[in-house]
Amino acid sequence: AGTVLATPAIAQELPTLRWRLTSGFPNNLDTIYGGAVVMAEALSEITEGKFQIQVFQAGELVPGAQAIDAVQANTVEIAHTCGYYFTGKNPTFAIGSTIPFGLNARQQNAWLYHGGGNELYNTFLEEYGVVGIPGGATGAQMGGWFRKEINSLADLSGIKMRIAGVAGEVMSRLGVVPQQLPGGDIYPALERGTIDAAEWVGPYDDERLGFYQIAPYYYYPAYWEGGLTIHFYINKAQYEALPETYKVALDTACKAANINMQALYDVKNTAAIRSLVGKGVQLRPLPRDVLDAAYKATFELYEEYSANNPQWAAIYPSWKKFRDESFEWFRVAEYTYDSYMYAAQAAGQ
Amino acid sequence: AGTVLATPAIAQELPTLRWRLTSGFPNNLDTIYGGAVVMAEALSEITEGKFQIQVFQAGELVPGAQAIDAVQANTVEIAHTCGYYFTGKNPTFAIGSTIPFGLNARQQNAWLYHGGGNELYNTFLEEYGVVGIPGGATGAQMGGWFRKEINSLADLSGIKMRIAGVAGEVMSRLGVVPQQLPGGDIYPALERGTIDAAEWVGPYDDERLGFYQIAPYYYYPAYWEGGLTIHFYINKAQYEALPETYKVALDTACKAANINMQALYDVKNTAAIRSLVGKGVQLRPLPRDVLDAAYKATFELYEEYSANNPQWAAIYPSWKKFRDESFEWFRVAEYTYDSYMYAAQAAGQ
Repeated sequence: AGTVLATPAIAQELPTLRWRLTSGFPNNLDTIYGGAVVMAEALSEITEGKFQIQVFQAGELVPGAQAIDAVQANTVEIAHTCGYYFTGKNPTFAIGSTIPFGLNARQQNAWLYHGGGNELYNTFLEEYGVVGIPGGATGAQMGGWFRKEINSLADLSGIKMRIAGVAGEVMSRLGVVPQQLPGGDIYPALERGTIDAAEWVGPYDDERLGFYQIAPYYYYPAYWEGGLTIHFYINKAQYEALPETYKVALDTACKAANINMQALYDVKNTAAIRSLVGKGVQLRPLPRDVLDAAYKATFELYEEYSANNPQWAAIYPSWKKFRDESFEWFRVAEYTYDSYMYAAQAAGQ
Repeated sequence: AGTVLATPAIAQELPTLRWRLTSGFPNNLDTIYGGAVVMAEALSEITEGKFQIQVFQAGELVPGAQAIDAVQANTVEIAHTCGYYFTGKNPTFAIGSTIPFGLNARQQNAWLYHGGGNELYNTFLEEYGVVGIPGGATGAQMGGWFRKEINSLADLSGIKMRIAGVAGEVMSRLGVVPQQLPGGDIYPALERGTIDAAEWVGPYDDERLGFYQIAPYYYYPAYWEGGLTIHFYINKAQYEALPETYKVALDTACKAANINMQALYDVKNTAAIRSLVGKGVQLRPLPRDVLDAAYKATFELYEEYSANNPQWAAIYPSWKKFRDESFEWFRVAEYTYDSYMYAAQAAGQ
């Protein structure tokens, strides 16, 4: 049985820290914004209140697009956001979060935690004075809301779609006119017809933003977000100054926040997709020729990055090898299991 | 920036605890046994050494099959093992870990963490004086090693197979003669021909046990383990006596161990399946008529449990509803994403 002894002296030596965190998300997106709160609350509790992180929604301290700059400048010690929001600085930011036709959620975690992925990503982040720790996931996302049906690749031509980053670049090669808009600006733009389509996250978040009221066709999957990882980005000097106890507490709390957000999304999306279908939303698979053209354009783009971007070139070959080999394994047990189960359900069993 | 203040007085009040953990696994299965070590090391570090758990391999303190009894009797405070090892006491033990044609890894976490699953499981565990916390996962497992090819359901008739629990009961209804053997006894039994087939975990663990040397046909998937969760089982009185800080530290470290084990398996299995194929192992899908017969037998069995076992009946309807609804959602974005990716790879792209 557990014995009760005196507390060792070391317990009195840990510093009290108060960090500020800027989220990449508004606080009405409770699951993705909430991931930072979940992490901060656990960290505070397990350090007996000594290591506290105050969470601010996007824009409260700094605009979402400036989160990396703010961490680098130590304006805030930590951010919780998606690497691909910083594709404009360098598309290599996206590789740690998700890139088109990339890893699914399980494969993301495998690559980041034990496939050398997060170490490579942190080597890249060093030039920004930032350390990245995975801390949230959405799973495969939905391909977005369209005002009109898309029956073939030709139907994408000239479509103005809210889609950003690497995915926006791929879409532009398919004839789409990509638009960058923050979440709150999407609904009015779609309503006015300033844009024809918009992708956001998945059923739960999308339902809250109300897109189904004005764009009835809901396409799947987001070929550009097969498994999004949200990272905690920490000022490197602040991170390195942490006592080992706090580093482990932070790492442990980030892992817990990661698995927790995925589980929460999986529950909430399950309810939301039913609700949306009940409201008359039309679910549609992206046409095969769209996916095929996007696949080809994506890997051409990756070759261009590899030729022109040394930071990308330092990570991509390892990522691609991991992707290809893990696909081979997942095709065996995991995918045949899922295939049987879903086919049995589709057959009414 | 972080400020340094005096440590609050509460830090000195936490007790020093030394718990003993019995693992359900031998320490040469480094990933699944190691999950308890990963958890214990994080817990010790973040509590500054005040809450320590010493990990013992199966059989060192108590045999694996007696882990729940030992926790109930407070012989050890905590175990790390699979609920389905205790199907002999009650098949309801299995529902928290994995049951045939059940949830995949993502769905397990969703159900346990946010679908009410672990709360229901703990209501069942109350009569054993035990609290369960998820703390490890393998993903979909392989269907086992066979000395001869299985081309149809008829070929299973009279096959002596190492397979236990609920899955053993289903297999017996397909004509298999199920055998319960600990991991270390499988290889000699298979070599002598005492058994004709054996299932264990997946490529990484299976390769270490050497089955490929004597049973060349490696079937997939394990329809009985679509997503195994390993739990930490804790003596309820010990758990409830923990200060809130330790409860949160334990919960956080268990979540981190859970995501960590899955990621580690996904990396190690990816390498091991390549290695096994290189050694001449013959990968084979389980025949469709085997899966169909097993599916039918499984849900008949679940109806029998529901009629005869009140503990099962208290959990199963909620589990089944969650399963069916989450399958509907996963079929939309997640499965179509995976399907496109693996088909592209199979087509050489």
